[in-house]
Amino acid sequence: MFSFKIEKKIDGALGRAGVISTPHGDIQTPAFIVVGTKATVKALTPEQISELGAQAVLANTYHLYLQPGDEIVAKAGGFPAFMNWQGPTFTDSGGFQAFSLGAALGHGISKLSKGDEAVETRGESEHVEHLRAKIDDEGVTFKSVIDGSTHHFTPERSMQIQHNLAADIIFAFDECTSPTASYDYQKVAMNRTHAWAERSLAEHKRLGGEQALFGIVQGGRYRDLREESARAIGAMDFPGFGIGGSFDEQDLGTAVAWVNTILPEGRPRHLLGIGEPEDFFTGIENGVDTFDCVAPSRMARNGSLQTKRGRINVLNSGYREDFSPIEEGCRCYTCRNYSKAYLAHLFRAKEMLAGTLATIHNLYFSVNLVKEIRQSIVDGRFAEFKEEFLAHFNSKAEAQA
Amino acid sequence: MFSFKIEKKIDGALGRAGVISTPHGDIQTPAFIVVGTKATVKALTPEQISELGAQAVLANTYHLYLQPGDEIVAKAGGFPAFMNWQGPTFTDSGGFQAFSLGAALGHGISKLSKGDEAVETRGESEHVEHLRAKIDDEGVTFKSVIDGSTHHFTPERSMQIQHNLAADIIFAFDECTSPTASYDYQKVAMNRTHAWAERSLAEHKRLGGEQALFGIVQGGRYRDLREESARAIGAMDFPGFGIGGSFDEQDLGTAVAWVNTILPEGRPRHLLGIGEPEDFFTGIENGVDTFDCVAPSRMARNGSLQTKRGRINVLNSGYREDFSPIEEGCRCYTCRNYSKAYLAHLFRAKEMLAGTLATIHNLYFSVNLVKEIRQSIVDGRFAEFKEEFLAHFNSKAEAQA
Repeated sequence: MFSFKIEKKIDGALGRAGVISTPHGDIQTPAFIVVGTKATVKALTPEQISELGAQAVLANTYHLYLQPGDEIVAKAGGFPAFMNWQGPTFTDSGGFQAFSLGAALGHGISKLSKGDEAVETRGESEHVEHLRAKIDDEGVTFKSVIDGSTHHFTPERSMQIQHNLAADIIFAFDECTSPTASYDYQKVAMNRTHAWAERSLAEHKRLGGEQALFGIVQGGRYRDLREESARAIGAMDFPGFGIGGSFDEQDLGTAVAWVNTILPEGRPRHLLGIGEPEDFFTGIENGVDTFDCVAPSRMARNGSLQTKRGRINVLNSGYREDFSPIEEGCRCYTCRNYSKAYLAHLFRAKEMLAGTLATIHNLYFSVNLVKEIRQSIVDGRFAEFKEEFLAHFNSKAEAQA
Repeated sequence: MFSFKIEKKIDGALGRAGVISTPHGDIQTPAFIVVGTKATVKALTPEQISELGAQAVLANTYHLYLQPGDEIVAKAGGFPAFMNWQGPTFTDSGGFQAFSLGAALGHGISKLSKGDEAVETRGESEHVEHLRAKIDDEGVTFKSVIDGSTHHFTPERSMQIQHNLAADIIFAFDECTSPTASYDYQKVAMNRTHAWAERSLAEHKRLGGEQALFGIVQGGRYRDLREESARAIGAMDFPGFGIGGSFDEQDLGTAVAWVNTILPEGRPRHLLGIGEPEDFFTGIENGVDTFDCVAPSRMARNGSLQTKRGRINVLNSGYREDFSPIEEGCRCYTCRNYSKAYLAHLFRAKEMLAGTLATIHNLYFSVNLVKEIRQSIVDGRFAEFKEEFLAHFNSKAEAQA
């Protein structure tokens, strides 16, 4: 039931427009996949998700495993049925959150984070306060963010949970390393990811069913590791791939190109957790087909709204009496029906509708931008569209009101 | 543009089915009017409000005056345009909240509240900590719940603000007394309400426009005061009426009947702030045409969901694996598409969609119950429907899951 068809390529680049077919419908690619962490895209109904143009939803295995539990979700018929979403779906492997959200545990190769900065350590770790998870070749042991209870994920367990969650596209269990990891550690983690990919595949085949399992390429910022990982994962029997790990912003395109030059051309590639407008262009030009990222919806809930000239914060006092939409010409539900003054009021009054309307706008912005990029590929004018868009866009500066 | 037509009466009772016509459409009465305090029905879009069957929205003058301010709302074209609601609208007078939410002030006849219990005092009050508002014949002085700043409402000011807010139906400025007020104080307050009604009418006429101004009957639990108030307000040039004040639960029907026997039959009557299922039957039987109440939506946001057998709390652990809807046979959007297990998950995970789905169900329940009562009047079987419904209904007990 799963297939991928390339419709048109970007001249002289790795990028392409295509269609992923799943048992729950097609995804026109490139596409931005909206995140529904706990079987809900925060503040939106499934009808609102459809109306803003989203084609597919990605839920997080880690979160649903902990709450309400994958067995309850299985009894509901899977997370798409649970949340009443009719279209295509993804779940991630659960690895990234287990590593990054797990609580302090004893020995092993571990990661910890101080604020936004990720730090990686190895070996004995009893004396480090913020240790989050213990990783070994078998899997990862972590503590729940909800109640501190101890849990163990392995490639087999991740497959079993993802089969319970029942998304169309699922991911092999991988180790997502810290951006600060050393070359030596990246290599250890990459080899473990490859061994876990084989175990994920075997367990997935044993469990049966129609879900498409994507393998994940790792290797950090190192060209030889990224290429080795793309060769190893690309040679396995996966119908599609994820590109994992952290990147330096300026090197994203280079790293993605290393990988996508090697991965089999006829299978789709998902860039995990990336969602800035500039990164869409970079990723797509270098052969990425789908993206997911929580940033647009998370920013929305804080009043930070995306426009073609960059972000604006609707709580700035200048918008209190601004009766124009967030962005003139935007065709999203929010811009067609509400003013910045109304949004400013809802945010100040801490009304729940603020989150709904802002999320609709920001997700529409990301989903629609990737659709416009797709159309530019189909029309053979990707380079022009990219230049045009980026000339006006500045994600750092407040747009002029 | 405003009119009211009676279609059918209940045999041997004051109740009737009718139609209120406003510049923004008709309201089939009896009707439950949903509350959109700050120009938003909490957690819902206007499309969701329409889809659940609500015909009209009532916003609170006090809240919009304080935030974002009625002048900003006026610049937006009124609260209905601000929130993008196309149908009929109401605003209340602002009096009730000014009295009940105002902060400590000096001299005068004042009210205070300790927890849920309302207490009323007169005269000097500097030594009472929780004093909320100062009332005299001119108007009410109160402190903002948002920033403690001092504000003054008079009948004239209430009219000016309600003209800025631009609802189809607005209310005369009244004094809503405490349930514990003495007979003597109720009489003072009632006479003040009558004088304020005349001043509201005069200012409303001076301001002009198409809004329909309803007068408010007060008089507490005292038959002679209620009847005197109905005669006085009923004789004024109001196209409709509000019935204000508090009631003892068991005396609601009696008090409403005293008033509605006297008020001119051909004009609609709104029972302010009442919304329990039993009270719908009592009010309607005794001649009430419209109701508003925050209870259904407030309860919804706490997980307390209305069914024809009483309320259930969806956070009870028995619902974690209950994949049936809140109520079998309910045609609301939530019950057609989601299980109690999904709602239980959303509430536990503190997801915003929990409030949306629960609010849709509870508002549908109230709106639809009043519609069913209307149909029973049209079909000449009000008494049977009332008996049938109340035999199963118990608002105090948890329904069997």
